[in-house]
Amino acid sequence: MNVDSWQSQLRKGAAELVVLSLLRGRQLYGVELLDRAGGSGGIVSDGTLYPLLARLEREGKLAAEWLLPDEAKIPRKYYRLTAEGEALVAEMQPVWRAFSAFVDAAIEERKHDPAPARPRRSLAERARA
Amino acid sequence: MNVDSWQSQLRKGAAELVVLSLLRGRQLYGVELLDRAGGSGGIVSDGTLYPLLARLEREGKLAAEWLLPDEAKIPRKYYRLTAEGEALVAEMQPVWRAFSAFVDAAIEERKHDPAPARPRRSLAERARA
Repeated sequence: MNVDSWQSQLRKGAAELVVLSLLRGRQLYGVELLDRAGGSGGIVSDGTLYPLLARLEREGKLAAEWLLPDEAKIPRKYYRLTAEGEALVAEMQPVWRAFSAFVDAAIEERKHDPAPARPRRSLAERARA
Repeated sequence: MNVDSWQSQLRKGAAELVVLSLLRGRQLYGVELLDRAGGSGGIVSDGTLYPLLARLEREGKLAAEWLLPDEAKIPRKYYRLTAEGEALVAEMQPVWRAFSAFVDAAIEERKHDPAPARPRRSLAERARA
């Protein structure tokens, strides 16, 4: 597997969790989400964020509202979690934590888990013995 | 998205990294890999591990050898990283660390990043003002 495509796969897998997590308890609009979840090393680009927001809104996980903050010149579409979105992110976060802890442990394991030390012979050596 | 299918997607995304990581600097056979990467909460089942090992061997990331440890009654197929596999896992691990740190930060962010506090009016309220 190519490392870049693997990285894209990881990001894609986490984008929904990240966006829902960032919206817990507050409203944000697209650019604010991109500031927090995009950029280099980020999880979403604007090309992936907006389709994701549209899908989550369609699925009833997010509700959107056009607002005009006092400092803004044009209306912005603000997103917030619905009760269903709240329940989903509350279910996803512990799944993520268990998953990432498992992977971290596997990566680190070689420091703590000595290689099984056993005498090994190839089948050919064994046959000669 | 269904949380179970999302969890499967996460696991699938990490299986290669986990298996390669577990083989750094040692030979293991299938059951030893399953002990470390399988089970409940694990990344692979025997139904996914063996096809993955076969693919990695075919791609030249792993080399396999049938050995007969003294304590074993039947030969076991032991896997080790090739130089190419070593290079791949060395490239994947920092990608994983950056990715998981990013997701962790997004999940935790609400504790540190207060919601942007701005006066908000809906377009209707603004029109009335």
